Amino acid sequence: MWETRHPPTQESFDPSKKTIVVLGSGWASTSFLKAVNTDDYNVVVVSPRNYFLFTPLLPSCTVGTIDVRSLVEPIRFITRHKSRDVKVYEAECTDIDPEKKLLTIVDSSDVKGESSVSTIPYDYLVIGVGAQNQTFGIKGVEQYGCFLKEVWDAQKIRTKLMDCIETAAFPGQSPEEIDRLLHMVVVGGGPTGIEYAAELHDFLVDDLTVWYPELAGKIKITLVEALPNVLPAFSKQLIEYTESTFKEQNITIHTKTMVKEVREKEIVVKKSDGTDASIPYGLLVWATGNTMRPMVRNLMNKLPESQTVRRGLSVDDWLRLQGSEDIFALGDATATKYAPTAQVASQQGKYLARVFAQLATTEKLEDELASAPAEEKAKKLRKYQKSQDIQPFKYSHQGSLCYVGSDKAIADVPFAQGNLSSGGVATFAFWRSAYVSNIFSGRNRWLVITDWTKKTLLGRDISRE
Amino acid sequence: MWETRHPPTQESFDPSKKTIVVLGSGWASTSFLKAVNTDDYNVVVVSPRNYFLFTPLLPSCTVGTIDVRSLVEPIRFITRHKSRDVKVYEAECTDIDPEKKLLTIVDSSDVKGESSVSTIPYDYLVIGVGAQNQTFGIKGVEQYGCFLKEVWDAQKIRTKLMDCIETAAFPGQSPEEIDRLLHMVVVGGGPTGIEYAAELHDFLVDDLTVWYPELAGKIKITLVEALPNVLPAFSKQLIEYTESTFKEQNITIHTKTMVKEVREKEIVVKKSDGTDASIPYGLLVWATGNTMRPMVRNLMNKLPESQTVRRGLSVDDWLRLQGSEDIFALGDATATKYAPTAQVASQQGKYLARVFAQLATTEKLEDELASAPAEEKAKKLRKYQKSQDIQPFKYSHQGSLCYVGSDKAIADVPFAQGNLSSGGVATFAFWRSAYVSNIFSGRNRWLVITDWTKKTLLGRDISRE
Repeated sequence: MWETRHPPTQESFDPSKKTIVVLGSGWASTSFLKAVNTDDYNVVVVSPRNYFLFTPLLPSCTVGTIDVRSLVEPIRFITRHKSRDVKVYEAECTDIDPEKKLLTIVDSSDVKGESSVSTIPYDYLVIGVGAQNQTFGIKGVEQYGCFLKEVWDAQKIRTKLMDCIETAAFPGQSPEEIDRLLHMVVVGGGPTGIEYAAELHDFLVDDLTVWYPELAGKIKITLVEALPNVLPAFSKQLIEYTESTFKEQNITIHTKTMVKEVREKEIVVKKSDGTDASIPYGLLVWATGNTMRPMVRNLMNKLPESQTVRRGLSVDDWLRLQGSEDIFALGDATATKYAPTAQVASQQGKYLARVFAQLATTEKLEDELASAPAEEKAKKLRKYQKSQDIQPFKYSHQGSLCYVGSDKAIADVPFAQGNLSSGGVATFAFWRSAYVSNIFSGRNRWLVITDWTKKTLLGRDISRE
Repeated sequence: MWETRHPPTQESFDPSKKTIVVLGSGWASTSFLKAVNTDDYNVVVVSPRNYFLFTPLLPSCTVGTIDVRSLVEPIRFITRHKSRDVKVYEAECTDIDPEKKLLTIVDSSDVKGESSVSTIPYDYLVIGVGAQNQTFGIKGVEQYGCFLKEVWDAQKIRTKLMDCIETAAFPGQSPEEIDRLLHMVVVGGGPTGIEYAAELHDFLVDDLTVWYPELAGKIKITLVEALPNVLPAFSKQLIEYTESTFKEQNITIHTKTMVKEVREKEIVVKKSDGTDASIPYGLLVWATGNTMRPMVRNLMNKLPESQTVRRGLSVDDWLRLQGSEDIFALGDATATKYAPTAQVASQQGKYLARVFAQLATTEKLEDELASAPAEEKAKKLRKYQKSQDIQPFKYSHQGSLCYVGSDKAIADVPFAQGNLSSGGVATFAFWRSAYVSNIFSGRNRWLVITDWTKKTLLGRDISRE
């Protein structure tokens, strides 16, 4: 513990080494940053957020089961433990010039200094900026919906949820208006949408029935999904288990239902039978997936011949950007055959650090080869050729987990040749332990366990901040 | 613990009982609410915040020593344990009609229902709405300064503090601009200002020197106070102790210095020698005291003959509003001979609950007296007269405490006939235990202790949310 909080002094920036600039501080970038060897490289991190966020537990934050602080790990807690000084800039990269190998970075926070735009050079660039929320251009989503991707999203949902409940309790509210205010709608049946609905259900049953007995019976949760079923990544059996659990919990699921427009107090949907309907709501959580960030689109336009997939950046099997020698990309910013999950991003980050380790070896051998005496050349050449032989990235699926409420979870875990599907309270224990063992640092592990204990002993907080 | 989280069912609203409406949920109102007997009265609470905030530890939240959630106690956690159902409205009282005994309440949150303005009747009104920040009409304070009174104030300071530090680390910042961004200025030498400066110092020394070694030596803290010394409520010896502790910690104190204007990046002050000076700053915390809320001013204008003190509501020795029979006022909303402290407000709340208990007895005896047979009249009358004999409010000072940084605190505690003054690390232990034992519920006590333990073991968080 002492060592964690008192890192030793670091070697300084070495102009003779190549410089890697890492964009982003999510799963992909952070996992790369943890694994990259700063003996070989100078490293610079550019991210508009100076922390890593453990996103899988974010739905728990919206109802106060876990505190957002517990899911956050400052990037400097990682960089200060590297052997060489790593620069961290809280800034957004707005433009990449692949010709001159220059980045434009902008201080996008509220506090700006004299210098708030700058250009920085790179030798290698690692793009792990993730993606932004997909709204499919549907009118009103940005304005009235709540997303669930960032720390402030969770805080906004929490405030809005408590406000809906307090406003329903305001004197003179009509019964229809109370029903509207207490109708919580989730759009999107992926793990985020399901886990949010599940946490919301727990909050209503465990806490609101006690503290707002007059409203408890009137709260409704509805999940809207355009596809024929929720959780497409899970086995049929677990989808059915989730659907029946939700039925028991009085969470309504509307599948094959498309959202056409979001208005301030209602959403307009096209139902499975082709007719339109209006659903009044108090809180709308939008959890339907990803789309590219503008900066990524901008870069793709600069490489029109090699960047032709419209979902995201195309990379080769070694995560090198198509059309560039010095740029690598990973995680949700890329369009690969893998799902946009934390698991994929984190494995890619670790893999890319190995690629860079081999690059360093190769370059060292190249230098040695150039200056080697004739009798050693053949041996060195073999070694050099071997060093270039880097295995392509291969994803190893560790399984899918999802919390479905009432202390139950579901898991699809690869086992022997097939899949092991399980659901229930035991799976919930597994879900918790898997999340805890996955949480990056000992510090955050301790914080999350404390939060769970707090919640069990003291209940959740119902104040509206 | 089980009982705390599973309160029994409550008696319902009784039209034959009188109704007390309580405005606010700070120290005064919450302390009244805890003590009032709902067997005798119907109670309604109106407050724009549905929680009580333990304000003395708020400076600790700005640097992440304590989480704001730990200092917050939802009002419903209290009202659900009263014998009779208590209505809680998250709303602001905008107007009081003392003639018709009616209140106008407005839902001031972002989520509004069909009904967002309403009038509610009262038999008795308890005004404990506190005060708002005093800016003395100085230009720019509202726009550029940060206050330290509410949960969101602490959150805003934290975000801004981290932003100043990250912006100072942005590439290309000039040395002067770095100095400006890392200059933290506190205006006001009362306990809030002193404790904020102290917490900030601890954060810089304990955390920033480790995680931002390149900036650590450049951060400066300055405290500006118009009076000749800080902490006017403390003894001379403790003022000197504080001033010398601050000197050791490199916190500059400018006394006899008046702020004339606040600009975006500098404050203009009039120094003790009469000349003007400009102080560039990155973060400005404004902690100079209280002024009346508009609603209180509005009520005073309706009672021009009895409400003549311009500092706040005038009340008699029984906390009854001058010029009204049914309105009581307490805490920072009033202009009394006492300082506007949590201690005074909380004692007034408890006292007022006793006044109401006696009022109930008196009224019951009045009824009995009216219908009593002649031979019992004299006895009843004596009892009745005795019941009217309520002692006036008397404040009992338990002492003043202030944290001054580096695990040191100061205390002025009344002892025998005089005062016991002490300062240092032992006083810090006393400061902590006094705060912990004062924190209202067992739940919050546990939360704050957990936070202190977390901080000791894991350090503070440096992420900017």
